[in-house]
Amino acid sequence: MPSPKIRKVGPLPSEEAKWTELRKIEWTDQTGKERVWEAAARKTRKSSGIDAVAIAPILRHPNKPPSTMIILQYRPPIEATCVEFPAGLIDEGETPEQAAVRELKEETGYEGKVLDCSPTIVADPGLTNANMQMVTVEVNLKEGEEPPEQHLDEGEYIERVVVPLSQLYDKLQGKHPLQLTVPSRTASDSLAALSKEEGKIVDARLFHWALGLHWSQRLGIKG
Amino acid sequence: MPSPKIRKVGPLPSEEAKWTELRKIEWTDQTGKERVWEAAARKTRKSSGIDAVAIAPILRHPNKPPSTMIILQYRPPIEATCVEFPAGLIDEGETPEQAAVRELKEETGYEGKVLDCSPTIVADPGLTNANMQMVTVEVNLKEGEEPPEQHLDEGEYIERVVVPLSQLYDKLQGKHPLQLTVPSRTASDSLAALSKEEGKIVDARLFHWALGLHWSQRLGIKG
Repeated sequence: MPSPKIRKVGPLPSEEAKWTELRKIEWTDQTGKERVWEAAARKTRKSSGIDAVAIAPILRHPNKPPSTMIILQYRPPIEATCVEFPAGLIDEGETPEQAAVRELKEETGYEGKVLDCSPTIVADPGLTNANMQMVTVEVNLKEGEEPPEQHLDEGEYIERVVVPLSQLYDKLQGKHPLQLTVPSRTASDSLAALSKEEGKIVDARLFHWALGLHWSQRLGIKG
Repeated sequence: MPSPKIRKVGPLPSEEAKWTELRKIEWTDQTGKERVWEAAARKTRKSSGIDAVAIAPILRHPNKPPSTMIILQYRPPIEATCVEFPAGLIDEGETPEQAAVRELKEETGYEGKVLDCSPTIVADPGLTNANMQMVTVEVNLKEGEEPPEQHLDEGEYIERVVVPLSQLYDKLQGKHPLQLTVPSRTASDSLAALSKEEGKIVDARLFHWALGLHWSQRLGIKG
Protein backbone atom coordinates (compact mmCIF):
# COMPACT_ATOMS: atom_id res chain seq x y z
CA MET A 1 0.00 0.00 0.00
CA PRO A 2 1.49 3.40 -0.95
CA SER A 3 2.35 5.91 1.77
CA PRO A 4 0.01 8.84 2.39
CA LYS A 5 1.20 12.11 0.84
CA ILE A 6 0.68 15.76 1.75
CA ARG A 7 -0.34 17.73 -1.36
CA LYS A 8 -0.72 21.22 0.10
CA VAL A 9 -0.72 22.98 3.46
CA GLY A 10 -2.22 26.45 3.65
CA PRO A 11 -3.93 28.83 6.06
CA LEU A 12 -7.49 27.91 7.02
CA PRO A 13 -9.83 30.92 7.30
CA SER A 14 -12.01 30.65 10.42
CA GLU A 15 -15.23 30.76 8.34
CA GLU A 16 -14.16 27.57 6.53
CA ALA A 17 -13.10 25.57 9.62
CA LYS A 18 -15.50 22.72 10.42
CA TRP A 19 -13.69 20.76 13.14
CA THR A 20 -11.37 23.28 14.77
CA GLU A 21 -11.41 26.91 15.85
CA LEU A 22 -9.19 29.59 17.35
CA ARG A 23 -10.36 31.40 20.46
CA LYS A 24 -9.43 34.72 21.99
CA ILE A 25 -9.39 34.47 25.78
CA GLU A 26 -9.54 37.73 27.71
CA TRP A 27 -8.48 37.14 31.31
CA THR A 28 -7.30 38.95 34.41
CA ASP A 29 -4.12 37.61 36.00
CA GLN A 30 -3.17 37.20 39.69
CA THR A 31 -2.13 40.87 39.96
CA GLY A 32 -5.29 42.26 38.35
CA LYS A 33 -3.62 42.86 34.98
CA GLU A 34 -5.82 42.36 31.90
CA ARG A 35 -4.32 39.91 29.41
CA VAL A 36 -5.16 38.08 26.18
CA TRP A 37 -4.36 34.43 25.36
CA GLU A 38 -4.87 32.65 22.04
CA ALA A 39 -6.05 29.05 22.08
CA ALA A 40 -7.13 26.32 19.66
CA ALA A 41 -10.13 24.05 20.27
CA ARG A 42 -12.02 21.16 18.69
CA LYS A 43 -15.62 21.90 17.68
CA THR A 44 -16.61 18.24 18.17
CA ARG A 45 -16.83 18.02 21.97
CA LYS A 46 -19.99 16.22 23.10
CA SER A 47 -22.08 16.66 26.24
CA SER A 48 -19.63 14.51 28.24
CA GLY A 49 -17.23 17.46 28.11
CA ILE A 50 -14.39 15.08 27.19
CA ASP A 51 -12.89 15.05 23.69
CA ALA A 52 -11.19 11.68 23.64
CA VAL A 53 -10.16 8.52 25.37
CA ALA A 54 -6.83 6.71 25.07
CA ILE A 55 -6.11 3.14 26.07
CA ALA A 56 -2.97 1.72 27.70
CA PRO A 57 -3.33 -2.02 27.03
CA ILE A 58 -1.64 -4.41 29.46
CA LEU A 59 -1.24 -7.77 27.68
CA ARG A 60 -0.92 -10.84 29.90
CA HIS A 61 0.19 -14.14 28.37
CA PRO A 62 0.75 -17.51 30.11
CA ASN A 63 4.45 -17.67 29.18
CA LYS A 64 5.45 -14.27 27.84
CA PRO A 65 6.41 -11.16 29.82
CA PRO A 66 3.79 -8.42 30.43
CA SER A 67 3.52 -6.34 27.26
CA THR A 68 1.63 -3.43 25.78
CA MET A 69 0.13 -2.85 22.34
CA ILE A 70 0.88 0.35 20.49
CA ILE A 71 -0.30 1.45 17.08
CA LEU A 72 1.15 3.16 14.03
CA GLN A 73 -1.13 5.59 12.24
CA TYR A 74 -0.53 8.39 9.71
CA ARG A 75 -1.36 11.79 11.23
CA PRO A 76 -1.72 14.67 8.76
CA PRO A 77 -1.06 17.49 11.32
CA ILE A 78 2.49 16.16 11.90
CA GLU A 79 2.90 14.99 8.28
CA ALA A 80 4.18 11.65 9.61
CA THR A 81 3.22 8.26 10.98
CA CYS A 82 2.70 8.48 14.74
CA VAL A 83 3.53 5.74 17.24
CA GLU A 84 0.84 6.00 19.89
CA PHE A 85 -1.63 4.25 22.19
CA PRO A 86 -5.00 3.26 20.69
CA ALA A 87 -7.40 6.19 21.12
CA GLY A 88 -10.59 7.72 19.81
CA LEU A 89 -13.32 10.25 20.35
CA ILE A 90 -16.08 9.49 22.88
CA ASP A 91 -19.50 8.94 21.28
CA GLU A 92 -22.59 10.67 22.63
CA GLY A 93 -23.93 8.76 25.65
CA GLU A 94 -20.80 6.61 26.16
CA THR A 95 -18.73 6.45 29.34
CA PRO A 96 -14.95 6.74 28.90
CA GLU A 97 -14.63 3.08 29.96
CA GLN A 98 -17.14 1.98 27.28
CA ALA A 99 -15.38 4.08 24.64
CA ALA A 100 -12.02 2.57 25.64
CA VAL A 101 -13.20 -1.05 25.32
CA ARG A 102 -14.93 -0.24 21.98
CA GLU A 103 -11.96 1.65 20.50
CA LEU A 104 -9.48 -1.03 21.58
CA LYS A 105 -11.58 -3.67 19.85
CA GLU A 106 -12.01 -1.57 16.68
CA GLU A 107 -8.37 -0.55 16.34
CA THR A 108 -6.66 -3.75 17.53
CA GLY A 109 -9.31 -6.48 17.54
CA TYR A 110 -8.58 -7.32 21.19
CA GLU A 111 -11.18 -7.42 23.95
CA GLY A 112 -10.16 -6.28 27.38
CA LYS A 113 -11.23 -5.50 30.91
CA VAL A 114 -10.92 -1.99 32.38
CA LEU A 115 -8.40 -1.85 35.25
CA ASP A 116 -8.29 1.88 35.86
CA CYS A 117 -9.52 5.23 34.49
CA SER A 118 -7.81 8.62 34.84
CA PRO A 119 -9.50 11.88 35.78
CA THR A 120 -9.86 14.44 32.97
CA ILE A 121 -6.37 15.34 31.79
CA VAL A 122 -5.23 17.91 29.20
CA ALA A 123 -2.97 17.33 26.19
CA ASP A 124 -1.25 20.72 25.76
CA PRO A 125 -2.77 23.33 28.11
CA GLY A 126 -0.67 26.27 26.88
CA LEU A 127 -2.15 25.91 23.37
CA THR A 128 -5.52 24.16 23.53
CA ASN A 129 -8.40 23.04 25.74
CA ALA A 130 -8.13 19.49 24.25
CA ASN A 131 -8.77 16.97 27.01
CA MET A 132 -9.04 13.21 27.45
CA GLN A 133 -9.25 10.34 29.87
CA MET A 134 -6.72 7.51 29.96
CA VAL A 135 -8.06 4.01 30.54
CA THR A 136 -5.81 1.06 31.42
CA VAL A 137 -7.24 -2.14 29.93
CA GLU A 138 -6.06 -5.69 30.65
CA VAL A 139 -6.08 -8.18 27.76
CA ASN A 140 -5.61 -11.85 28.61
CA LEU A 141 -4.03 -13.82 25.75
CA LYS A 142 -4.07 -17.58 25.43
CA GLU A 143 -1.20 -19.79 24.29
CA GLY A 144 -1.17 -20.12 20.48
CA GLU A 145 -4.02 -17.64 19.93
CA GLU A 146 -4.09 -16.00 16.48
CA PRO A 147 -4.22 -12.17 16.42
CA PRO A 148 -7.87 -11.12 15.97
CA GLU A 149 -9.22 -9.09 13.06
CA GLN A 150 -9.31 -5.30 13.41
CA HIS A 151 -12.65 -3.53 12.85
CA LEU A 152 -11.42 -0.32 11.25
CA ASP A 153 -13.60 2.52 9.94
CA GLU A 154 -13.45 3.37 6.27
CA GLY A 155 -10.24 5.34 5.69
CA GLU A 156 -8.51 4.09 8.89
CA TYR A 157 -5.14 2.33 8.46
CA ILE A 158 -3.64 1.16 11.72
CA GLU A 159 -0.75 -1.23 12.36
CA ARG A 160 -0.47 -2.99 15.71
CA VAL A 161 2.79 -3.64 17.55
CA VAL A 162 3.21 -5.67 20.76
CA VAL A 163 6.15 -4.61 22.95
CA PRO A 164 7.24 -6.18 26.27
CA LEU A 165 7.02 -3.49 28.96
CA SER A 166 10.68 -4.00 29.90
CA GLN A 167 11.74 -3.06 26.33
CA LEU A 168 9.31 -0.22 25.56
CA TYR A 169 11.52 2.70 26.53
CA ASP A 170 14.55 1.50 24.54
CA LYS A 171 12.38 0.81 21.50
CA LEU A 172 10.80 4.28 21.58
CA GLN A 173 14.22 5.87 22.02
CA GLY A 174 15.14 4.11 18.77
CA LYS A 175 17.81 1.96 20.43
CA HIS A 176 16.40 -1.29 19.05
CA PRO A 177 14.29 -2.07 16.01
CA LEU A 178 10.58 -2.13 16.75
CA GLN A 179 9.28 -5.50 15.58
CA LEU A 180 5.70 -6.51 15.13
CA THR A 181 5.42 -9.16 17.80
CA VAL A 182 1.75 -9.90 17.39
CA PRO A 183 1.75 -13.72 17.67
CA SER A 184 2.02 -15.64 14.39
CA ARG A 185 3.06 -12.68 12.27
CA THR A 186 5.89 -13.46 9.89
CA ALA A 187 9.34 -11.91 10.04
CA SER A 188 8.62 -9.79 6.98
CA ASP A 189 6.31 -7.67 9.11
CA SER A 190 9.17 -6.40 11.20
CA LEU A 191 9.58 -2.66 11.32
CA ALA A 192 12.81 -0.76 11.31
CA ALA A 193 13.97 1.32 14.28
CA LEU A 194 11.84 4.32 15.06
CA SER A 195 13.42 7.51 13.94
CA LYS A 196 12.48 10.75 12.29
CA GLU A 197 14.36 9.77 9.14
CA GLU A 198 11.90 6.99 8.59
CA GLY A 199 8.96 9.31 9.07
CA LYS A 200 7.81 7.99 12.45
CA ILE A 201 7.27 10.21 15.47
CA VAL A 202 6.31 9.06 18.96
CA ASP A 203 3.29 10.55 20.76
CA ALA A 204 4.32 12.47 23.90
CA ARG A 205 1.83 10.66 26.14
CA LEU A 206 3.06 7.19 25.13
CA PHE A 207 6.66 8.36 25.54
CA HIS A 208 5.97 9.68 29.05
CA TRP A 209 4.31 6.38 30.04
CA ALA A 210 7.42 4.52 28.82
CA LEU A 211 9.69 6.98 30.63
CA GLY A 212 7.76 6.37 33.88
CA LEU A 213 8.23 2.59 33.45
CA HIS A 214 11.93 3.14 32.75
CA TRP A 215 12.66 5.35 35.76
CA SER A 216 10.67 3.15 38.11
CA GLN A 217 12.92 0.25 37.07
CA ARG A 218 16.14 2.32 37.15
CA LEU A 219 15.46 3.77 40.60
CA GLY A 220 13.90 0.62 42.05
CA ILE A 221 10.75 2.42 43.24
CA LYS A 222 8.48 0.31 45.45
CA GLY A 223 4.79 1.18 45.84
CA MET B 1 -3.13 36.77 45.82
CA PRO B 2 -6.49 36.67 44.00
CA SER B 3 -7.20 33.88 41.51
CA PRO B 4 -6.97 34.61 37.79
CA LYS B 5 -10.34 35.15 36.11
CA ILE B 6 -11.62 34.64 32.57
CA ARG B 7 -13.51 37.75 31.41
CA LYS B 8 -14.52 36.69 27.91
CA VAL B 9 -13.93 33.87 25.42
CA GLY B 10 -14.79 34.51 21.77
CA PRO B 11 -13.83 33.43 18.28
CA LEU B 12 -10.45 34.66 17.06
CA PRO B 13 -10.44 35.69 13.38
CA SER B 14 -7.32 34.35 11.62
CA GLU B 15 -6.18 37.87 10.63
CA GLU B 16 -5.96 38.84 14.32
CA ALA B 17 -4.09 35.73 15.55
CA LYS B 18 -0.48 36.46 16.51
CA TRP B 19 0.68 33.22 18.17
CA THR B 20 -1.53 30.53 16.68
CA GLU B 21 -3.04 29.59 13.34
CA LEU B 22 -5.34 27.06 11.72
CA ARG B 23 -4.08 25.11 8.70
CA LYS B 24 -5.87 23.26 5.94
CA ILE B 25 -3.95 20.11 5.02
CA GLU B 26 -4.78 18.56 1.67
CA TRP B 27 -3.45 15.00 1.54
CA THR B 28 -3.79 11.72 -0.33
CA ASP B 29 -4.43 8.65 1.81
CA GLN B 30 -3.12 5.07 1.47
CA THR B 31 -5.75 4.20 -1.15
CA GLY B 32 -5.16 7.29 -3.31
CA LYS B 33 -8.23 9.12 -2.00
CA GLU B 34 -7.91 12.91 -1.69
CA ARG B 35 -8.74 14.17 1.80
CA VAL B 36 -8.66 17.35 3.92
CA TRP B 37 -7.54 17.64 7.58
CA GLU B 38 -7.77 20.71 9.80
CA ALA B 39 -4.92 21.41 12.23
CA ALA B 40 -3.80 24.06 14.70
CA ALA B 41 -0.19 25.28 14.96
CA ARG B 42 1.96 27.70 16.93
CA LYS B 43 3.50 30.55 14.93
CA THR B 44 6.46 30.77 17.32
CA ARG B 45 8.55 27.76 16.24
CA LYS B 46 12.22 28.65 15.90
CA SER B 47 14.88 27.23 13.58
CA SER B 48 15.39 24.23 15.92
CA GLY B 49 12.04 22.94 14.65
CA ILE B 50 11.03 22.15 18.25
CA ASP B 51 8.37 24.18 20.05
CA ALA B 52 9.08 23.34 23.65
CA VAL B 53 11.00 21.38 26.23
CA ALA B 54 9.62 19.79 29.39
CA ILE B 55 11.61 18.62 32.37
CA ALA B 56 11.07 15.52 34.52
CA PRO B 57 13.09 16.35 37.65
CA ILE B 58 14.46 13.43 39.70
CA LEU B 59 15.24 14.74 43.19
CA ARG B 60 17.81 12.77 45.20
CA HIS B 61 18.19 13.46 48.93
CA PRO B 62 20.55 11.77 51.46
CA ASN B 63 17.68 10.46 53.63
CA LYS B 64 14.45 10.94 51.70
CA PRO B 65 12.98 8.73 48.99
CA PRO B 66 13.50 9.65 45.29
CA SER B 67 11.00 12.38 44.40
CA THR B 68 9.96 14.61 41.55
CA MET B 69 9.02 18.28 41.41
CA ILE B 70 5.82 19.32 39.69
CA ILE B 71 4.38 22.79 39.26
CA LEU B 72 0.98 24.47 39.48
CA GLN B 73 0.32 27.19 36.92
CA TYR B 74 -2.87 28.88 35.69
CA ARG B 75 -3.50 28.03 32.00
CA PRO B 76 -6.05 30.23 30.20
CA PRO B 77 -6.88 27.69 27.41
CA ILE B 78 -8.26 25.24 30.01
CA GLU B 79 -9.60 28.01 32.30
CA ALA B 80 -7.96 26.26 35.25
CA THR B 81 -4.74 25.72 37.16
CA CYS B 82 -2.73 22.91 35.60
CA VAL B 83 -0.54 20.42 37.49
CA GLU B 84 2.38 19.75 35.20
CA PHE B 85 6.12 19.28 34.76
CA PRO B 86 8.23 22.42 34.45
CA ALA B 87 8.43 23.38 30.75
CA GLY B 88 9.12 26.23 28.38
CA LEU B 89 9.77 27.28 24.82
CA ILE B 90 13.27 26.75 23.39
CA ASP B 91 15.13 30.01 22.71
CA GLU B 92 16.90 30.60 19.41
CA GLY B 93 20.31 28.91 19.42
CA GLU B 94 19.65 26.76 22.52
CA THR B 95 19.84 22.97 22.65
CA PRO B 96 16.90 21.19 24.34
CA GLU B 97 19.25 20.21 27.19
CA GLN B 98 20.30 23.84 27.73
CA ALA B 99 16.68 25.01 27.63
CA ALA B 100 15.74 22.31 30.18
CA VAL B 101 18.41 23.30 32.70
CA ARG B 102 17.55 27.02 32.23
CA GLU B 103 13.77 26.54 32.53
CA LEU B 104 14.12 24.29 35.59
CA LYS B 105 16.22 26.96 37.30
CA GLU B 106 13.82 29.78 36.34
CA GLU B 107 10.61 27.98 37.32
CA THR B 108 11.82 26.09 40.42
CA GLY B 109 15.17 27.63 41.44
CA TYR B 110 16.88 24.23 41.35
CA GLU B 111 20.00 23.41 39.35
CA GLY B 112 20.29 19.97 37.84
CA LYS B 113 22.27 17.65 35.60
CA VAL B 114 20.77 16.20 32.40
CA LEU B 115 20.34 12.41 32.60
CA ASP B 116 18.44 11.78 29.39
CA CYS B 117 16.75 13.54 26.46
CA SER B 118 13.85 12.23 24.36
CA PRO B 119 13.61 12.35 20.59
CA THR B 120 11.07 14.82 19.15
CA ILE B 121 7.62 13.82 20.42
CA VAL B 122 4.19 15.27 19.63
CA ALA B 123 1.56 16.49 22.10
CA ASP B 124 -1.72 15.81 20.25
CA PRO B 125 -1.05 14.67 16.67
CA GLY B 126 -4.71 14.45 15.60
CA LEU B 127 -5.17 18.19 16.26
CA THR B 128 -1.83 19.99 16.06
CA ASN B 129 1.79 19.81 14.94
CA ALA B 130 2.91 20.95 18.46
CA ASN B 131 6.08 19.09 19.41
CA MET B 132 8.58 18.94 22.24
CA GLN B 133 11.50 17.12 23.78
CA MET B 134 11.41 15.67 27.29
CA VAL B 135 14.56 16.01 29.36
CA THR B 136 15.12 14.07 32.60
CA VAL B 137 17.19 16.16 35.01
CA GLU B 138 18.73 14.97 38.29
CA VAL B 139 18.79 17.41 41.21
CA ASN B 140 20.94 16.50 44.21
CA LEU B 141 19.62 18.01 47.45
CA LYS B 142 21.62 18.36 50.66
CA GLU B 143 20.40 17.72 54.18
CA GLY B 144 18.74 20.84 55.64
CA GLU B 145 19.00 22.86 52.40
CA GLU B 146 16.51 25.73 52.07
CA PRO B 147 14.40 25.78 48.86
CA PRO B 148 16.06 28.20 46.41
CA GLU B 149 14.43 31.34 44.98
CA GLN B 150 12.54 31.03 41.71
CA HIS B 151 13.53 33.34 38.83
CA LEU B 152 10.14 33.92 37.23
CA ASP B 153 9.40 36.16 34.27
CA GLU B 154 7.07 39.12 34.75
CA GLY B 155 3.52 37.73 34.83
CA GLU B 156 4.58 34.15 35.70
CA TYR B 157 3.07 32.64 38.88
CA ILE B 158 4.26 29.11 39.57
CA GLU B 159 3.94 26.99 42.71
CA ARG B 160 6.34 24.09 43.29
CA VAL B 161 5.36 20.76 44.79
CA VAL B 162 7.75 17.91 45.71
CA VAL B 163 6.20 14.43 45.55
CA PRO B 164 7.92 11.10 46.35
CA LEU B 165 7.82 8.95 43.20
CA SER B 166 6.09 6.13 45.08
CA GLN B 167 3.15 8.46 45.87
CA LEU B 168 2.83 10.40 42.61
CA TYR B 169 0.15 8.30 40.95
CA ASP B 170 -2.17 8.27 43.99
CA LYS B 171 -1.75 12.03 44.45
CA LEU B 172 -2.60 12.79 40.82
CA GLN B 173 -5.61 10.47 40.99
CA GLY B 174 -6.77 12.67 43.89
CA LYS B 175 -6.57 9.83 46.42
CA HIS B 176 -4.43 11.82 48.85
CA PRO B 177 -3.98 15.54 49.44
CA LEU B 178 -1.10 17.01 47.51
CA GLN B 179 1.15 18.75 50.03
CA LEU B 180 3.94 21.14 49.31
CA THR B 181 6.88 19.13 50.56
CA VAL B 182 9.59 21.56 49.56
CA PRO B 183 11.91 21.35 52.60
CA SER B 184 11.31 23.93 55.33
CA ARG B 185 7.93 25.09 54.08
CA THR B 186 5.30 25.49 56.76
CA ALA B 187 2.15 23.40 57.06
CA SER B 188 0.04 26.32 55.88
CA ASP B 189 1.43 25.77 52.39
CA SER B 190 -0.32 22.43 52.08
CA LEU B 191 -2.65 22.10 49.13
CA ALA B 192 -5.93 20.26 49.07
CA ALA B 193 -6.49 17.11 47.03
CA LEU B 194 -6.35 17.59 43.30
CA SER B 195 -9.75 17.53 41.76
CA LYS B 196 -11.73 19.35 39.13
CA GLU B 197 -13.98 20.90 41.77
CA GLU B 198 -11.02 22.82 43.08
CA GLY B 199 -10.11 24.06 39.63
CA LYS B 200 -6.99 21.93 39.14
CA ILE B 201 -6.45 19.70 36.11
CA VAL B 202 -3.50 17.37 35.54
CA ASP B 203 -1.44 17.56 32.33
CA ALA B 204 -1.73 14.35 30.28
CA ARG B 205 2.04 13.94 29.91
CA LEU B 206 2.68 14.15 33.66
CA PHE B 207 -0.21 11.76 34.28
CA HIS B 208 1.16 9.22 31.79
CA TRP B 209 4.61 9.40 33.43
CA ALA B 210 2.99 8.70 36.81
CA LEU B 211 0.93 5.89 35.30
CA GLY B 212 4.11 4.29 33.91
CA LEU B 213 5.72 4.44 37.38
CA HIS B 214 2.56 2.94 38.90
CA TRP B 215 2.27 -0.01 36.49
CA SER B 216 5.96 -0.79 36.65
CA GLN B 217 5.57 -1.15 40.43
CA ARG B 218 2.27 -3.05 40.23
CA LEU B 219 3.55 -5.54 37.65
CA GLY B 220 7.05 -5.81 39.08
CA ILE B 221 8.74 -5.05 35.74
CA LYS B 222 12.51 -5.57 35.71
CA GLY B 223 14.68 -3.82 33.11
